[in-house]
Amino acid sequence: MKRCLTALVSLLTFWGSLCLAQTDQPTIKEDFKPSTLNQPGQEYPQVNSQGYARFRIKAPQADSVKVSLGLGGRRGTILTKSEDGIWTGTTEGPLDEGFHYYHLTIDGGIFNDPGTGNFYGSIRWESGIEIPAHDQDFYALKDVPHGRVEQVLFPSKSTHTSRRAFVYTPPDYDKDPTKRYPVLYLQHGWGEDETAWSHQGHANLIMDNLIAEGKIKPFLIVMTYGMTNEIKFGGLRNFDIKPFQTVLVDELIPYIDANFRTLSDQPHRAMAGLSMGGMETKTITLANLDKFSHIGLFSGGTFSLDDVNNTPGFKEKIKLVFVGFGSRELENRGGRPGFFGGDPKANADALKQAGINSAFYVSPNTAHEFLSWRRSLREFAPLLFKD
Amino acid sequence: MKRCLTALVSLLTFWGSLCLAQTDQPTIKEDFKPSTLNQPGQEYPQVNSQGYARFRIKAPQADSVKVSLGLGGRRGTILTKSEDGIWTGTTEGPLDEGFHYYHLTIDGGIFNDPGTGNFYGSIRWESGIEIPAHDQDFYALKDVPHGRVEQVLFPSKSTHTSRRAFVYTPPDYDKDPTKRYPVLYLQHGWGEDETAWSHQGHANLIMDNLIAEGKIKPFLIVMTYGMTNEIKFGGLRNFDIKPFQTVLVDELIPYIDANFRTLSDQPHRAMAGLSMGGMETKTITLANLDKFSHIGLFSGGTFSLDDVNNTPGFKEKIKLVFVGFGSRELENRGGRPGFFGGDPKANADALKQAGINSAFYVSPNTAHEFLSWRRSLREFAPLLFKD
Repeated sequence: MKRCLTALVSLLTFWGSLCLAQTDQPTIKEDFKPSTLNQPGQEYPQVNSQGYARFRIKAPQADSVKVSLGLGGRRGTILTKSEDGIWTGTTEGPLDEGFHYYHLTIDGGIFNDPGTGNFYGSIRWESGIEIPAHDQDFYALKDVPHGRVEQVLFPSKSTHTSRRAFVYTPPDYDKDPTKRYPVLYLQHGWGEDETAWSHQGHANLIMDNLIAEGKIKPFLIVMTYGMTNEIKFGGLRNFDIKPFQTVLVDELIPYIDANFRTLSDQPHRAMAGLSMGGMETKTITLANLDKFSHIGLFSGGTFSLDDVNNTPGFKEKIKLVFVGFGSRELENRGGRPGFFGGDPKANADALKQAGINSAFYVSPNTAHEFLSWRRSLREFAPLLFKD
Repeated sequence: MKRCLTALVSLLTFWGSLCLAQTDQPTIKEDFKPSTLNQPGQEYPQVNSQGYARFRIKAPQADSVKVSLGLGGRRGTILTKSEDGIWTGTTEGPLDEGFHYYHLTIDGGIFNDPGTGNFYGSIRWESGIEIPAHDQDFYALKDVPHGRVEQVLFPSKSTHTSRRAFVYTPPDYDKDPTKRYPVLYLQHGWGEDETAWSHQGHANLIMDNLIAEGKIKPFLIVMTYGMTNEIKFGGLRNFDIKPFQTVLVDELIPYIDANFRTLSDQPHRAMAGLSMGGMETKTITLANLDKFSHIGLFSGGTFSLDDVNNTPGFKEKIKLVFVGFGSRELENRGGRPGFFGGDPKANADALKQAGINSAFYVSPNTAHEFLSWRRSLREFAPLLFKD
């Protein structure tokens, strides 16, 4: 009897789940609002409270319009045309919270959505959309004292030009002309540029809010372009770190220390980066232990005990190793753990057991995308320059 | 005989001009190069040494692609499709030197050219192209000390938000923490925003170069958004200056004076603007003679003797009135002189004769476009804060 009951419960549960699957056609809530990144006055694209995105494109004589975003992966979201020549469509399912790049394919050509702003990614200015995150408060524009994002043009002899960097200075920077600050050098990912962290990353607002809440001691953030191959935009296969390392270490750092009120010794200089910027961070910091004391990799690799043991002086000189990922990046894919060169959590634990100040962070329900990196910066910043 | 000769000469001249017209099909020089504003690695759009622009758009299944730029006026430049699905076309004639906004119309929808950068104009991010000017050296990125362009977020009670401004600080700003600087408030035109002057305007590079050549004493430039109607983007007909005047005079100026090392008295504060920004400048300065001493209108109206006489205190308090236009703006159109509210040159002369420091500038061979305004800033800046 008990067995029968159990079987019945199982059967009901089975049917229940089938019913659920059958009746669980996504009920899309009609509470769509314009994305916060839209151009002024533009009603579309829109986002609803479930994270669905809806697009609306005017192209009356076009034969096909699709959006490179949505559950369909490479297929994206295919728009359909109404009689008035307007193409509309909604993603098949909800998108992850946070920022997403996308573009349109119109009759076989790639264009941006004229409704929204432009964000440099994939070696082009892409369209962007923002799915409000449940924790978006930490990067919101709030009524707190705001720091500045300062565009500087610094001389680069190695590349025969003036190069651009953005420098975040905290709200109190101009209050006391004798005060000096630590510096974090913060790198973007492949296909992005020096605008990414303060534009789609909101690094300045994250800092403003952390400072207003008393969670961190103020420091500067310096963001510059992490490649020097302005002419040939190829893949990462033949990427040579040396030209950028020269720009960063031999040109930008001395410029920043000469033109901003920095604490210019090794204990007060950190480097971090996302994706390719994390790989750059690892390579450059390991080769320059006398210059950097705090290291952050955001979805850009891990540090293993071998890395430490192969780098004389690491234990003495490095005060923090932070590794962050989006949770979806760590899910096993086709039975392949060991993603990103070894289990990052196990690596982080091994470093900790070896006496290294090692921090590991997983951003919930995000992938290789900017909400993972905004959150990583929020977690990383309070751990910097503690002494 | 003389009459016959005259007739013959006339006839020859007539035929000569006909021949000229027939053989003077524009010989387009095939020395096209990528526009300097192109996205990294993009070969098109291109510009040749005569000022022709050539476009190349991939949209294999499209039925029509045109560019809203070129001699054709509203017709623009119609592109033609080759067998490989690439649309190409060249403007019918050369464009004015300098910067031009444009966009594509693809199958009836308006999109940007994926080859080039985006510039805010016409209440949208437009495509932009740069025709190298013969005098482009004055706004070129050169190997001179560079100032910064600093993004600030300032509190605005009247609009219940933090508003954005960009502040140009000269190269020596951080060298001497006791030195204070005059300030120019510089406004964009209708449909543009606070990014225009440092982006398509190159105001920072113009200043860097003037300072490097010793032509001006350094001052700050503050650029903010000149409208407050973020919700309804209408025409200028119902434009009310008061909300913006409140933001500028009651909120931004006190913020800048509190957070930058300014000379905050009336003799060291100027205001200028282009087009709508010139109209705003005129209205706001006339209503605030105790706050501004130097005034610049770039393609944005004139000052008449009536304006002066109707404003008690003008002669005593205003140290400079500068009016600039592009030459093509002043050409008679359909026998209508008196363009822009009276002959601007005659108005400027009348002010001078009345003992007012009045300057008038005409940018050669340019229209209502950014090269007129870059040049106006170059001419205006050395006249500021002379005592």
